[in-house]
Amino acid sequence: MTGTRTTAGPAAAPAAVSGERIDAHLARFAGLTEPGSGPGCTRLAYSPLERDAHAVFAAHMGALGLTVATDPAGNTVAELPGEPGVPAVGTGSHLDTVPRGGGYDGIVGVVAAMEVAEVAVRLRLPHRRPWRFVAFAAEEGARFGQACNGSRMAAGLTGAADLPGLTDREGRTMADAMAAVGLRPDLVDGARWRPEDWFAFVELHIEQGEVLASEGLDVGVVDVISGSTRLLVEVTGRATHSGGTPMHLRHDALVTAAHCVELGDRFARRPGNEGLRVTVGRLGVEPNSITTVPGAVEFSVDIRDVDPVRQRAAAKALAHDFAAAAGEHGTALTTRVLADTPPVVLPEWVAGHAEAACAAVGAAYRVLPSGASHDTQQVNHVVPAGMIFVPSDGGLSHVPEESTPTPQIATGVRALLETLRGLDRAER
Amino acid sequence: MTGTRTTAGPAAAPAAVSGERIDAHLARFAGLTEPGSGPGCTRLAYSPLERDAHAVFAAHMGALGLTVATDPAGNTVAELPGEPGVPAVGTGSHLDTVPRGGGYDGIVGVVAAMEVAEVAVRLRLPHRRPWRFVAFAAEEGARFGQACNGSRMAAGLTGAADLPGLTDREGRTMADAMAAVGLRPDLVDGARWRPEDWFAFVELHIEQGEVLASEGLDVGVVDVISGSTRLLVEVTGRATHSGGTPMHLRHDALVTAAHCVELGDRFARRPGNEGLRVTVGRLGVEPNSITTVPGAVEFSVDIRDVDPVRQRAAAKALAHDFAAAAGEHGTALTTRVLADTPPVVLPEWVAGHAEAACAAVGAAYRVLPSGASHDTQQVNHVVPAGMIFVPSDGGLSHVPEESTPTPQIATGVRALLETLRGLDRAER
Repeated sequence: MTGTRTTAGPAAAPAAVSGERIDAHLARFAGLTEPGSGPGCTRLAYSPLERDAHAVFAAHMGALGLTVATDPAGNTVAELPGEPGVPAVGTGSHLDTVPRGGGYDGIVGVVAAMEVAEVAVRLRLPHRRPWRFVAFAAEEGARFGQACNGSRMAAGLTGAADLPGLTDREGRTMADAMAAVGLRPDLVDGARWRPEDWFAFVELHIEQGEVLASEGLDVGVVDVISGSTRLLVEVTGRATHSGGTPMHLRHDALVTAAHCVELGDRFARRPGNEGLRVTVGRLGVEPNSITTVPGAVEFSVDIRDVDPVRQRAAAKALAHDFAAAAGEHGTALTTRVLADTPPVVLPEWVAGHAEAACAAVGAAYRVLPSGASHDTQQVNHVVPAGMIFVPSDGGLSHVPEESTPTPQIATGVRALLETLRGLDRAER
Repeated sequence: MTGTRTTAGPAAAPAAVSGERIDAHLARFAGLTEPGSGPGCTRLAYSPLERDAHAVFAAHMGALGLTVATDPAGNTVAELPGEPGVPAVGTGSHLDTVPRGGGYDGIVGVVAAMEVAEVAVRLRLPHRRPWRFVAFAAEEGARFGQACNGSRMAAGLTGAADLPGLTDREGRTMADAMAAVGLRPDLVDGARWRPEDWFAFVELHIEQGEVLASEGLDVGVVDVISGSTRLLVEVTGRATHSGGTPMHLRHDALVTAAHCVELGDRFARRPGNEGLRVTVGRLGVEPNSITTVPGAVEFSVDIRDVDPVRQRAAAKALAHDFAAAAGEHGTALTTRVLADTPPVVLPEWVAGHAEAACAAVGAAYRVLPSGASHDTQQVNHVVPAGMIFVPSDGGLSHVPEESTPTPQIATGVRALLETLRGLDRAER
């Protein structure tokens, strides 16, 4: 179809996006869940079910006449060929889920790629660049503790040498899990993308937040992906009897931790900290008995910001404030940095194409940062990349109730299609 | 030996209490722990190991020439006979432990009974009342959720009809557990003590607090056993992505719960609330993931006081303050009363005998309330009862590190022996 031109095709392209096809694809993927895993979708990184989902994607693309290949890392790439030697544009997302997750996180972006490909093929859309459609493998960090594995391998950020060190809760290494589903952990270094093959990449994803929904918007164009500093805090007090220990003789680890949770929340709400998000998501109490003053508490702190200076300053200030709180409560406290990733500013010119596309299709949109990390920030190391968000109902994600209304997905797909068309014509 | 009189015996009695024998008994019981259960002592209510401990107690008493019987509830009672028709004095405590508990909670009181009996027999101490030595069954509530089972059955507060409703975490009923160790759940109503058989009962126990240790005292005489109101609080927020959800769009169940934990702690430290003890000992977070704003938190609140009016007023005020906190944080909160036991004022005349005994043996003592509940408050329903505390190192209990120096236990046993001698001579 390369170079083929029709007069009706390009103008009719956005209108050709089909909500019915989108719904059918989503339903097909939603059915691929671990039997007996409860509500929602459980399709873990490098599981046989994830490969089944990739097979559905590959079959769709093959039926459209695209060339399809799976790399050693498990990423599936379909290509609509372009003019020889011209760098490609691409889109896609991931098909794995967290345990008891939903049917939209990642999946919507792959379904968008499937629909864009179908419209391009049906309308014989003219284009000069190769258009690549990607289903990344193993994006969720829930199983192996590291997120965005397929895209990290594509970007050369994780290689064969790292895989034996990544294990799941059953002690299985990522290398073993990959081999068990027919992939080639020994060859993943060959999955790297060459920058010269690519012009730009744009991912469509659910927002996983409530900004778009609360403002009544259809689409978001991402300018920055937040950085994340993760702390593990351990508080040590003294486990004594709840009845036998008067208040003034207590060393209560939970009262200390509660104070820290409130400090973190208040810190992020201070004027001037509007981009900062501080979350204590995990907290465990020992011995966790009704009649025992808690002797030990461990909790996580996730500190996100689009500003790396404020992100690191917040982590440092909170570690200091936590230690002071422990002193007040007669407990001991240690803070350890579990992970520290800086924010990623996405190239403005890619976002500019997405904004122009939103305007062209009449989507109500805004520019906003991404609080969550994504495959996009990985591939942005080797390909200029952008992101388009569609709204998350109630801001929910990683839960069975996660959803986005089909008309909004369709609007996002139209914007994505026009973004790719704009990038197809553009030069840097 | 009844009525036998020697001149040397009575005066030498306190000096005859042996720290070495006490240590040997404690070591014997400490060895009876569930294999593989980790440090400390795990000897659960109505387990075979608890029965083994009762057998050690029974063998000791039998060897001293006392009559020994086990009632259908599993309480083991040894008797040194007195004059016919005269109501008895008694002492004792329990031999079960919490999981990974220590070797002193309950056990010290049974060992005290063993040593008092041995001194009484060795010195042929004159006495007119029967002296009864009791090892109560199943005092700890850790397994079945209800504490003081053996003593409650002795006091007629729990009967055969209640046992099928009490289950452990494996779903085993108390009745089944009792039958499995050779007891008779169908006959427990026959374990009731008759008030007319008893004159007074005095239990020796570790303080499970730090009051005596912090004041450098050897012995405490208990005047009041605190009441306890237990609340279960459920907070419902919204589980959303930690990165995707700005602070102003959060419904964070853990921030709400943290606020409540601090409210409870501060409430109990207010001037005028000196007898009040508020503890959040158990707290669980859902989904408990580093990158998810907590969607639900459940926590317990244990409210203890020696003043029933202040105890209930505190429970009411906290439930009100918790609801207000939830409102501030955009979450929903429910508070349910799990249990509500009023304080028990122990008879002053029994405590008076204990105080006189402390003075007689030269023990540095004070009168103090018990924050924890005990078998004593159950049997006090049918027998006038008192309690003697020995210090807990560091206030620790229900942990492997729980301990009391042997010289202080011996001082407590001397005070207990003299208390029983005083009660033996007394009339109400």
